[in-house]
Amino acid sequence: MQKKVPIPAIISLDTIESVLPEIAVFNAISQGFQAYSKGEAVIPPVGEMLFQQPPGEVHIKYGYLKSAPYYVVKIASGFYQNPSLGLPSSQGLNLLFDKQNGLLVAILLDEGRLTDIRTAVAGALASKALASTQVRRLGIVGAGIQARLQTAYHQHFFSLEEVIVWNRDMAKAEQLVLELQAKGQAARCTDSLSVLCERCQLIVTTTPATSPLIQADWVQAGTHITAVGADTSAKAELDPKLMEKADVLVVDSLAQSESRGEIYQAAEAGFVDRDTVLELGQVLAAPALGRKNEQQITIADLTGVAVQDLMISQAIFDHIKLSNLSLIHI
Amino acid sequence: MQKKVPIPAIISLDTIESVLPEIAVFNAISQGFQAYSKGEAVIPPVGEMLFQQPPGEVHIKYGYLKSAPYYVVKIASGFYQNPSLGLPSSQGLNLLFDKQNGLLVAILLDEGRLTDIRTAVAGALASKALASTQVRRLGIVGAGIQARLQTAYHQHFFSLEEVIVWNRDMAKAEQLVLELQAKGQAARCTDSLSVLCERCQLIVTTTPATSPLIQADWVQAGTHITAVGADTSAKAELDPKLMEKADVLVVDSLAQSESRGEIYQAAEAGFVDRDTVLELGQVLAAPALGRKNEQQITIADLTGVAVQDLMISQAIFDHIKLSNLSLIHI
Repeated sequence: MQKKVPIPAIISLDTIESVLPEIAVFNAISQGFQAYSKGEAVIPPVGEMLFQQPPGEVHIKYGYLKSAPYYVVKIASGFYQNPSLGLPSSQGLNLLFDKQNGLLVAILLDEGRLTDIRTAVAGALASKALASTQVRRLGIVGAGIQARLQTAYHQHFFSLEEVIVWNRDMAKAEQLVLELQAKGQAARCTDSLSVLCERCQLIVTTTPATSPLIQADWVQAGTHITAVGADTSAKAELDPKLMEKADVLVVDSLAQSESRGEIYQAAEAGFVDRDTVLELGQVLAAPALGRKNEQQITIADLTGVAVQDLMISQAIFDHIKLSNLSLIHI
Repeated sequence: MQKKVPIPAIISLDTIESVLPEIAVFNAISQGFQAYSKGEAVIPPVGEMLFQQPPGEVHIKYGYLKSAPYYVVKIASGFYQNPSLGLPSSQGLNLLFDKQNGLLVAILLDEGRLTDIRTAVAGALASKALASTQVRRLGIVGAGIQARLQTAYHQHFFSLEEVIVWNRDMAKAEQLVLELQAKGQAARCTDSLSVLCERCQLIVTTTPATSPLIQADWVQAGTHITAVGADTSAKAELDPKLMEKADVLVVDSLAQSESRGEIYQAAEAGFVDRDTVLELGQVLAAPALGRKNEQQITIADLTGVAVQDLMISQAIFDHIKLSNLSLIHI
């Protein structure tokens, strides 16, 4: 006699947004990276699909921790013409399955939001682990969703006297500056990336650029850069020579850095010795592996790892299960 | 001002089962294979994930037709100890997304059922395209879900005087025979695969075997075999020499046959010249490419292609949209 398969929990974006403030996302994702770098996760290669008309891309990230009850499949898309239609460019969802039997346990209808958030959380974790504690000014390259979220999540760890925004389209940079000021954050924009690099020793790059924006000789001693924009083989925001100039190079996934991200491009061009590159989970577990002094240049190149999707989805689902079962269904 | 993203249609297995009889699945999937073989589809490599305790596997298949409105992501798992827990070994779901903007359009909570059905539909289409029209006896290797569904979908195209079932566990073969007889289908089982091959000139293999079950010299002139069990690099049901002996070799996907299925194994062992292998969509579009006479041995090696998942999911969703909007939500 076969059992009836239980209907999965279906969790709306509103529910996700309402519980997110109660989730210890930094801790969950830091633990995930550390487990991943210790070999405690199974994370197959990223699935990727491209579209032409209109241009778009889909990433499918999936995997599990050997010690955790679920496997995750996360689908996230970027359709960069969406904002002109009044829609966010990011879309997608997270699925949790029972890894004992394959049953679908939860559908998180996050519309790409959890991908955006776990990316910002990882960026802030990387900057906290690697940037100088003296940093008081944040340079943000780009003026989209990640520019906003990276700023917000960096504010958890850094007392920012000023945020400086550069964007190819200056009107959007000005808009972001107004938003930050409205929230009480001193901010201004610049049309010169070299000025941004001169003024900021903490820089987060968030664009889908396919040729480098930041030149090696603009970057000052003591700077940390977290680069989250380049997540495919074709994208790059940093001059490959900057990777050679850097003292500490960190990636979220050594495996993924063999085919995507800044380090991939720089290694292909011969500017990086892969053996010197660290994984973020290693640095989070042993901070002494990171910055050694106030003069070093450090770079974190993040392409996004399924273990982040697993940790944030699991934390939200577990929280909903424990706190209020009535939240589970739409 | 951003638009509210619409909640996707969430379609339960009960709803799917209730509309399936009204869906022209053979036509939909045949059209899908033909479009795929004409280069009108974008189907990236299959994502795969394995589990150890308990043993299980997950396949993620995804893609789109250039001319169709949706992209599909299908997650299907096989946990072969599930039946001992009262659960089907197959689990999973299908997701349809709008390929203009990435919005999630429909969640088909099919619990692996649509994967099972589109596999059986493809098997029957392949057998119809390649088997002798004289065939009156079907040999079924295996006694699980696919053994049942392949028999049922083959009955659409073949007037079967008898079904002969072989299975490693004879008790399960006997159970299947009783079920078929109860539905008015003459059937019996055998503990000898060579006898099955001698008696049946239409054979469907449905097992997860990892070493060949059917030996080359057992197979008679005029036989057609549809092999659906081997869908990874490690699985095989047919003697590689049988591929050399066959006159016509057909796969559902030439690209996937480079890394999975019977043809993969036989080509690696040097028994198959890849240049002679046809794709099912080619044969469906031009049946003269298939069997030339009643003496030829033909083999269809099916590993399962995302275009099948797309076509069956789209057909179900379109049918529900047109027929009764109230069916859309659970």
